[in-house]
Amino acid sequence: MSRIYAVGIGPGGQEYMTQEAFQVLKQVDIIAGYTVYVDLIRERYPDKAFFTTPMKKEIERCRWAVERAREGQSVAMICSGDAGVYGMAGLLFELAQQYDDMEVEVVSGITAAISGAAVLGAPIGHDFCLISLSDLLTPWELIEKRLRCAGEGDFAICLYNPRSKKRDDYLRKACDILLRYKAPETVCGWVRNIGREGEEYRVLTLGELGAEPIDMFTTVFIGSATTRVMNGRMITPRGYEKHEDTYFRRNDGE
Amino acid sequence: MSRIYAVGIGPGGQEYMTQEAFQVLKQVDIIAGYTVYVDLIRERYPDKAFFTTPMKKEIERCRWAVERAREGQSVAMICSGDAGVYGMAGLLFELAQQYDDMEVEVVSGITAAISGAAVLGAPIGHDFCLISLSDLLTPWELIEKRLRCAGEGDFAICLYNPRSKKRDDYLRKACDILLRYKAPETVCGWVRNIGREGEEYRVLTLGELGAEPIDMFTTVFIGSATTRVMNGRMITPRGYEKHEDTYFRRNDGE
Repeated sequence: MSRIYAVGIGPGGQEYMTQEAFQVLKQVDIIAGYTVYVDLIRERYPDKAFFTTPMKKEIERCRWAVERAREGQSVAMICSGDAGVYGMAGLLFELAQQYDDMEVEVVSGITAAISGAAVLGAPIGHDFCLISLSDLLTPWELIEKRLRCAGEGDFAICLYNPRSKKRDDYLRKACDILLRYKAPETVCGWVRNIGREGEEYRVLTLGELGAEPIDMFTTVFIGSATTRVMNGRMITPRGYEKHEDTYFRRNDGE
Repeated sequence: MSRIYAVGIGPGGQEYMTQEAFQVLKQVDIIAGYTVYVDLIRERYPDKAFFTTPMKKEIERCRWAVERAREGQSVAMICSGDAGVYGMAGLLFELAQQYDDMEVEVVSGITAAISGAAVLGAPIGHDFCLISLSDLLTPWELIEKRLRCAGEGDFAICLYNPRSKKRDDYLRKACDILLRYKAPETVCGWVRNIGREGEEYRVLTLGELGAEPIDMFTTVFIGSATTRVMNGRMITPRGYEKHEDTYFRRNDGE
C-alpha cells in the first residue's frame, strides 16, 4: 500500500499549523506544492526535497507526487489553509483511484474562513456559507445562483478568491446580488494577509464593500441579519443573549 | 487592558491543536470550558486551575472567565473545534464590550467540518454550507429555510448537532427537505467521534441518511450534485478534471 499526505499548513506561520501537520512534514522525504506556499515553510525543513509548480499546474503537480509515492517515497502535498477546502485533497483522491493500492491521508489545517474570522472577531459564529468567486473551474452562473441562495437564506457568507486581475468586478457583482436580499447596513469585513506580514482588516457595511480595494490575498466576510459590530469587531452571535435577557440586562447596569 | 483568550482545541487529541493554541494554554493561569472538553486536555496541563460548567451554562461560564481576566488573571476559554464556529468567541465579545478595556483574542482550531472531512475524504472540496440542526437558540423555521436554500443552491452541506434525545427526528426532517432539491443517490457521509477513540465513518446516499443511528457526537456531510464515491471515500471535486480531459483520459489507459 502506497500513501500520500495532503497537508493543510494553515495561513503560513508555523504556530498556526497543527502538531500533526508539523510531524508529517518532518518525516516525509519530499514536500510538494504551489511555489508560493512552499516558500512559506521551506526554511523550517532544510533537509527535504521540494517540488513546486506554479498556479494552473495542479494536475501535473499532483500526478508527479502520486508517482513518487508509488515508487515508495514518502511525499506530502501541502496546501495553504486546509487541503480539503478548495485544496488538492480531492484531486489526489481522483488520481489515486487510478491505482490499485494508493491511499490518501488528509491532514487538517486552518482554512482562511477560520483564521480570518479570528482576526475580525466572530463573523461566522452561526450558520454560514463558503463560496469561491473564482470562475476558472466553476461557471459564473452557478456562483451567482449560490450567492442568491446564500442571500435568501440569511447565511453569514465567507468569500474566497474575491478578486483577481482578470476578474476585477466580481466582488462588486457579488455585492449587487446580495444587496437584493440583505440590507446595505449589513455588517461585513475583510482580512488581508491573514497571519502574515502586512496583516490588515476592516469592518464595514455591505453597501461599502463592493468598492473596496480588495486583492487575491483577501478573504471577505458578509454578515447575516444578526451580525453586529462590537468594539470595532464583526460578531455573528450564536443567540445566547436572546435567551438570557435578564442576565444581560443586569450586567448592562439596568 | 485586560485580555481573555478564546481557544479552539480541535477534535480533542493534542496533535490536532495548533502550536499557537498549545502555547497559549501552557502560559495561562486558568483554563475554563465545558466539562467534557476540559476533561480532554486536563492531563496535559497538570499545573493549571480549571473552571468547568455543564451545557446550557455558557453565559455563567463566560461571565466568570471575563471577571477573572479583569482581575488580572490570565484566562483561556476552550472550545472543541474552533471557538469562532458555534463556539464561545461571540459570547465573550458580547460580554467584553460591557467593560472599557477588555480584549478578546481568538486562537483558531480545527472545526469538525474540517476534521470530519479529512476522515471522509474531501466532501467539502468546493462551495459548502455549515448548518446546525439545534433549535435551542435558533427557531426551527429559520433552520428549515436555510436547508431549503442550501438545497436549491446545490451546496455541499455539513450538519452540526444532527440529533439529540429531544430532537430525535430532526435529521430525518432535514433529509426530507433536502430530497426536494437533491437526488436520493446524492453521496453523503457521517463521522462519529472524530479524532477520538471509537472514530467511525460511513459513506452512503441521501436516501439512506435519514434512518441512520446518528448521535450528538456525529458530524454529517451531504454532497452536491458533483460529489462522488472514490475508493470508498466521499469526494466533492473542485473541477480540475473537466478542464484537463486529455490528461485524465491518457492516465485512465485510453
